[in-house]
Amino acid sequence: MNADIKEAVKKITGQVIEWRRDFHKYPEAAWTEFRTAEKVVKVLNSFGYDVTYGSEVVEETAMMGVPTQDVLENSAKRAIEEGADRTVIERMAGGKTGVVGTLYTGRPGPIVALRFDMDANEVQEKTAGEHRPWKDGFASLHAGVMHACGHDGHTAIGLGVAKLLQENKENLCGTIKLIFQPAEEGVRGAKAMVEAGVVDDVEYLFGMHLGFLAGSSDRFICGTDGFLATTKFDAYFSGVPAHAGAAPQEGRNALLAAAHAAVSLHGIPRHAAGVSRINVGVLEAGSGRNVIADKAVLKLETRGETSAINCFMQEEALRIIHGAAAMQGVTVTISEMGGASGGQSDTAIANRLRQAAEDSGLFDVIEERGSLGASEDFTCFLERVQENGGQGGYAMVGINRAAGHHDGAFDFDEAALSNAVTVLTLAVSNLLQKDALSE
Amino acid sequence: MNADIKEAVKKITGQVIEWRRDFHKYPEAAWTEFRTAEKVVKVLNSFGYDVTYGSEVVEETAMMGVPTQDVLENSAKRAIEEGADRTVIERMAGGKTGVVGTLYTGRPGPIVALRFDMDANEVQEKTAGEHRPWKDGFASLHAGVMHACGHDGHTAIGLGVAKLLQENKENLCGTIKLIFQPAEEGVRGAKAMVEAGVVDDVEYLFGMHLGFLAGSSDRFICGTDGFLATTKFDAYFSGVPAHAGAAPQEGRNALLAAAHAAVSLHGIPRHAAGVSRINVGVLEAGSGRNVIADKAVLKLETRGETSAINCFMQEEALRIIHGAAAMQGVTVTISEMGGASGGQSDTAIANRLRQAAEDSGLFDVIEERGSLGASEDFTCFLERVQENGGQGGYAMVGINRAAGHHDGAFDFDEAALSNAVTVLTLAVSNLLQKDALSE
Amino acid sequence: MNADIKEAVKKITGQVIEWRRDFHKYPEAAWTEFRTAEKVVKVLNSFGYDVTYGSEVVEETAMMGVPTQDVLENSAKRAIEEGADRTVIERMAGGKTGVVGTLYTGRPGPIVALRFDMDANEVQEKTAGEHRPWKDGFASLHAGVMHACGHDGHTAIGLGVAKLLQENKENLCGTIKLIFQPAEEGVRGAKAMVEAGVVDDVEYLFGMHLGFLAGSSDRFICGTDGFLATTKFDAYFSGVPAHAGAAPQEGRNALLAAAHAAVSLHGIPRHAAGVSRINVGVLEAGSGRNVIADKAVLKLETRGETSAINCFMQEEALRIIHGAAAMQGVTVTISEMGGASGGQSDTAIANRLRQAAEDSGLFDVIEERGSLGASEDFTCFLERVQENGGQGGYAMVGINRAAGHHDGAFDFDEAALSNAVTVLTLAVSNLLQKDALSE
Amino acid sequence: MNADIKEAVKKITGQVIEWRRDFHKYPEAAWTEFRTAEKVVKVLNSFGYDVTYGSEVVEETAMMGVPTQDVLENSAKRAIEEGADRTVIERMAGGKTGVVGTLYTGRPGPIVALRFDMDANEVQEKTAGEHRPWKDGFASLHAGVMHACGHDGHTAIGLGVAKLLQENKENLCGTIKLIFQPAEEGVRGAKAMVEAGVVDDVEYLFGMHLGFLAGSSDRFICGTDGFLATTKFDAYFSGVPAHAGAAPQEGRNALLAAAHAAVSLHGIPRHAAGVSRINVGVLEAGSGRNVIADKAVLKLETRGETSAINCFMQEEALRIIHGAAAMQGVTVTISEMGGASGGQSDTAIANRLRQAAEDSGLFDVIEERGSLGASEDFTCFLERVQENGGQGGYAMVGINRAAGHHDGAFDFDEAALSNAVTVLTLAVSNLLQKDALSE
Repeated sequence: MNADIKEAVKKITGQVIEWRRDFHKYPEAAWTEFRTAEKVVKVLNSFGYDVTYGSEVVEETAMMGVPTQDVLENSAKRAIEEGADRTVIERMAGGKTGVVGTLYTGRPGPIVALRFDMDANEVQEKTAGEHRPWKDGFASLHAGVMHACGHDGHTAIGLGVAKLLQENKENLCGTIKLIFQPAEEGVRGAKAMVEAGVVDDVEYLFGMHLGFLAGSSDRFICGTDGFLATTKFDAYFSGVPAHAGAAPQEGRNALLAAAHAAVSLHGIPRHAAGVSRINVGVLEAGSGRNVIADKAVLKLETRGETSAINCFMQEEALRIIHGAAAMQGVTVTISEMGGASGGQSDTAIANRLRQAAEDSGLFDVIEERGSLGASEDFTCFLERVQENGGQGGYAMVGINRAAGHHDGAFDFDEAALSNAVTVLTLAVSNLLQKDALSE
Repeated sequence: MNADIKEAVKKITGQVIEWRRDFHKYPEAAWTEFRTAEKVVKVLNSFGYDVTYGSEVVEETAMMGVPTQDVLENSAKRAIEEGADRTVIERMAGGKTGVVGTLYTGRPGPIVALRFDMDANEVQEKTAGEHRPWKDGFASLHAGVMHACGHDGHTAIGLGVAKLLQENKENLCGTIKLIFQPAEEGVRGAKAMVEAGVVDDVEYLFGMHLGFLAGSSDRFICGTDGFLATTKFDAYFSGVPAHAGAAPQEGRNALLAAAHAAVSLHGIPRHAAGVSRINVGVLEAGSGRNVIADKAVLKLETRGETSAINCFMQEEALRIIHGAAAMQGVTVTISEMGGASGGQSDTAIANRLRQAAEDSGLFDVIEERGSLGASEDFTCFLERVQENGGQGGYAMVGINRAAGHHDGAFDFDEAALSNAVTVLTLAVSNLLQKDALSE
Repeated sequence: MNADIKEAVKKITGQVIEWRRDFHKYPEAAWTEFRTAEKVVKVLNSFGYDVTYGSEVVEETAMMGVPTQDVLENSAKRAIEEGADRTVIERMAGGKTGVVGTLYTGRPGPIVALRFDMDANEVQEKTAGEHRPWKDGFASLHAGVMHACGHDGHTAIGLGVAKLLQENKENLCGTIKLIFQPAEEGVRGAKAMVEAGVVDDVEYLFGMHLGFLAGSSDRFICGTDGFLATTKFDAYFSGVPAHAGAAPQEGRNALLAAAHAAVSLHGIPRHAAGVSRINVGVLEAGSGRNVIADKAVLKLETRGETSAINCFMQEEALRIIHGAAAMQGVTVTISEMGGASGGQSDTAIANRLRQAAEDSGLFDVIEERGSLGASEDFTCFLERVQENGGQGGYAMVGINRAAGHHDGAFDFDEAALSNAVTVLTLAVSNLLQKDALSE
Repeated sequence: MNADIKEAVKKITGQVIEWRRDFHKYPEAAWTEFRTAEKVVKVLNSFGYDVTYGSEVVEETAMMGVPTQDVLENSAKRAIEEGADRTVIERMAGGKTGVVGTLYTGRPGPIVALRFDMDANEVQEKTAGEHRPWKDGFASLHAGVMHACGHDGHTAIGLGVAKLLQENKENLCGTIKLIFQPAEEGVRGAKAMVEAGVVDDVEYLFGMHLGFLAGSSDRFICGTDGFLATTKFDAYFSGVPAHAGAAPQEGRNALLAAAHAAVSLHGIPRHAAGVSRINVGVLEAGSGRNVIADKAVLKLETRGETSAINCFMQEEALRIIHGAAAMQGVTVTISEMGGASGGQSDTAIANRLRQAAEDSGLFDVIEERGSLGASEDFTCFLERVQENGGQGGYAMVGINRAAGHHDGAFDFDEAALSNAVTVLTLAVSNLLQKDALSE
């Protein structure tokens, strides 16, 4: 069967690359992946998947860091102008751009899910020199937005896997769910899909990323650990303005509240149980030099080696922010802007991925484990699956890179696309092969 | 009559100096003026005054900055060992060392009060060189305590005035109250006597201080202004200790709460309506280098050109302290340690003092007004009298000084004692002379 | 002569109003007053004044808070499009929009200067309801810019005075300088004209403002005091960015430097010698939530009742800012963005203005003195004149207002324009009348 | 041979306990171990060791956190009164209480060192209830000082090992150094002995501690890791006092400098390479409520999983402290009060200790590794030995405890003493046995 799969991959490699370049040319930032998601819907439908999207798979109350209504509407309008089907777009109103495609084999067996993220970055793509997307005519047409983290590739890989599994359906048992998630950047989107229940019945979960610790095309990392649990939030302070010369005593100083909070937040004690992080990345306060500032915002994040440590950090942070507001007599409101759990890939899944990578013969270096040291909201799905007794794992598929992730010159060797399609298809196929369930 | 008074002063000058030296030799700090007060009681009784003291004239719930029970008891015991009457001392238990002596003329007329303060400073007296109290054998016998602000003189002056008014009683109408106040240092004592009601019926109030703006024996300042309203308080933070290496996250850091509070307190906005002040003079926190500090104390004061401004400062300060505690998750308790109002001498009283000073012929330079720029809890009495429609004023009687106030080498020319007795007696006598009430 | 002047004012009142409305319709913010200044040049030339402008009267190295080159160039271009003479505009390149018109009487006598400011505010004008400029068709055509502080009126008044003095030239002696200053908002422009020497030879200096303490058309304030000396500056912190999750230790945190500085700046001690102020009105730091912020800016101002107190505040502020940068290992650069001196109107000038106001018969309420409690860079001219032994004063001419200064609905009763022209012309004419110099 | 050693241990067990109780009864805090060290000198001499002490083994310039001269002198005097030899004590003047005893076997072979610490804690021993030292009459006779960390045991163990190795000398080759270190508490003493060169020639180094992770008598931990490198220091700020009401602008506020420093120090970024710690445990500032504080002290410590991380923390801390001083215009001086390196026990040594523990048959639970998570200046010796190509390791010998370390009720089961003597003697004997050097 493995040989068949490899052969099948070859046939669709051109198509996968085409998908990826199309997504790359029309990048859409978090919660505005209308055109991308519409295409995913269309393609999955064409493969015979049962497709759900919009509010069926995205719980509105759990969406974090959503852009303004204006931005959402303009993005939806743009998607339609760029050819998307208006009816589909309308069902994604408000940014509910998540899609789930389900393939029922008709035979009893496990429920397996694969998760892919679709959003682009708020980065201006390089349009000069040797930058291949620009030279080859598929650079971003959307100013200030770019696929600089490879999610265009992830989405294309997801569609490629969809195709191969569908072709191979007769040899498989159980059920396959392909989850296409919006808004991974800022770890904003996974929670809303988890809260909508899309993995509540899942027994095996696979996730992947191009690159990161796998820094060349010949490398494959089977199980990723070291996901830092994280919470992103904004704190808006509101005080009372006053003329700084004539009546300073009448002010309630939001700038000082924010400054005190920032200083104190960085002093949250280190946690002895493991890695913790805090960062106030943005502080903006005040309007005029001679006015007691009545508005201020902090944009911050906490992280922890475990969800418990991140929870400690978050609680400390909230207490400090409220205390700093009280200190200056101003009010504060907090908006949660993103979040992910900590997590560990299950060894069983990592082993399956290792087996598939070995079987593929595509990689020179296959590593058991890699420690990310950053955050990915794949962990929200993973946590739910593990809580329900299931298993999950997250691979990193090697790429040769033109520049680092999130850089305007980011590009990667597209051979990685079919490599990833191959490994994931092999792993799922092995897991769901009709006669192998006794393992 | 003036000539008679001047003659009478001469007769008691030696006695007044003797009293002053006795008080100087046995100085007693705030709320421990047991021996001093007992002597005042005894002398006033001997002059035929109606004398009240202890809880009759000091409201316990309004006493601020009282020493520990140990200190109070040891001081009371010491006073008895130094000759004070045990029965009197026992009625002053807990530091209620205020005394009021009342002289009824038996003729209808105004109620006039004079206020004198009795407490010494926590200063070590110089015992060397040309320091006169030491050379002449009346330097402090109490280690670490010294009359370095002239209150020994004030008390002696009060007794001198008591003597002269009693001798002159037949020429006077109305009622005279001589108020001997404990704990002026730290502005801790006046409030408790005001709350006990000792000036509720007073129509005219006189206060005075040796020196300050009147820097030589030939000067007299008739009306003092520029009293800064002030509040003194201590803030005790209490958190949770933890080992700084093994479990920093388990601590609740009182040191950081206090540090944040101190920094923020100094940033209370300037008040456009007038002078304001804030000072955290003392911060003590923590016990060991490797322990998250669970205890901290701030000792601070606010001031304002008016009571309203000081009130603003105090409210800001309290809010900040509570906010800083909340920020660090620690608790805080506040103890009010002292306080005084702002205030202005009434012109009518200043004029009476000017007239008396002129009549005395004792001063070369008589100034209408002086602005203190500091705090004195005489203002608590003044505020109450003025609220009730009465008038009050505060004079400064010139002294030649050996060193500045509160200095271990402080001493003054004792001629000022009889000068002060003369002017105050003249002023009161003029006000209460039997036939002059039509003025 | 007074009657003649009043008659002459009537004849030009319509013209003055027309000028004011023209300036109102084409408002120009600080250092971009190209069209306004060009018109002033043209009109003064037409009156026969000797006119200098550009680098002759604006010292480039002393210009503060100048906009970017882009803004300057676009503004100059716009002025030309709106009808200004290109040659004149080119001589004002870089924002040197100050103008000085000099009238030589040909007779020996004092040198008298009047100063008017020309710049508009960065305020969006109201375009609705009863707002008169909008109803009557002279509301701002420049988005986001508006004459909301009356400088349109000041410039028109200056031209009116220019006309009348020129007409009356034969009755006058000495020399008259009319100074039209850019960039009073933010107290940015006066220093550059003073440094160019425009008042170095001036013996008498007059300044004025519509409104402020003179809140109705029937009021006139002869001498303004209580100018707060002030310094405006920006502090740019520059650190090192780092990923907040992966390598926080590699960052140098500019946000924390700015936050510490802001907190500490507000804690600069109150100055016992008089009013002081400090305000950090704006703090902007950081670019992304998950990046250690490497950039931050503080916009702040200090003030003082005297230049000495402001100097103390400024020195403290600079030390704190540099210390905070050192604390976080970041660099900081300071840009001075504006500044004014403290100052007092000379009584002699205030008296002249009072006399003129009385002679005008236009005001019901004439006040000797008013205390501004804010900053005006007229004081830079005043300080220079007084240092050279001259005298100066600053009047406030009453207006009925539709809304407060700097409000988008600000408007005033244009009767004030001729009132101001009258009083200033009278005051100067009295001072320079041919036969009156013996006074 | 092992059987012989075990037999030999039995014979000296009573003596070891007696030594321990003697040290317990006369506890001496850091740098004042005069009596203890004198006894060690005397005993080692009696065993025929070559003994050096005082400035030969303690480098004065590297002594940290030394008590005042008064304390040193009083302690030395007390030791003499308690029976110590005056001549020996005098050679330890200034606190140089370190002792090194060397045993030369006379046969070529490795140089092996064992290190024991001798100082007591500043803890008041419990003198009530079931506290065994009190019941059995060997509780501390020195108020406020107590052996609450088992160093009395360590010293006794060292003497026991000295005895056994000397008895077994004929079977051994190489050289044995027994190092008795003062001032381990506060990690103050090791550096001075290392700088004196006492381990410069050492090839194998052993250290041990009773208890900690080995919480019952049947446990033995062979190799300790997780030593946190640490630096302890005090920062003394010195400013200018001023009256907070009359002239606040004249002060230079040391309290605010210390508060800002404390707040900022806790915000030193977490280091991604491993565990870091920072704690300001003590802040004391100011003298009076109404005085701008001119003095402040911070007592702090940094820690790191490696010396490099601690070095980062220390450099950040120093920069912040100096920056905070600059911010307030005050001066600061830093005193290093203690320090230790990070470190790892070498596996080869841990294996030797495991072998010895197994051979002893004394322990039920033998663990390969334990992670301390705290600091111990044994690491200073270890670092030097490892730098020179040698090996070292640190064991934890189980105790049953009455209370936690550093608690006034601390006590331990004295069986641990002979257990430790046995294992250490076995380990050294195996390493130095005459015929085993080929291993």
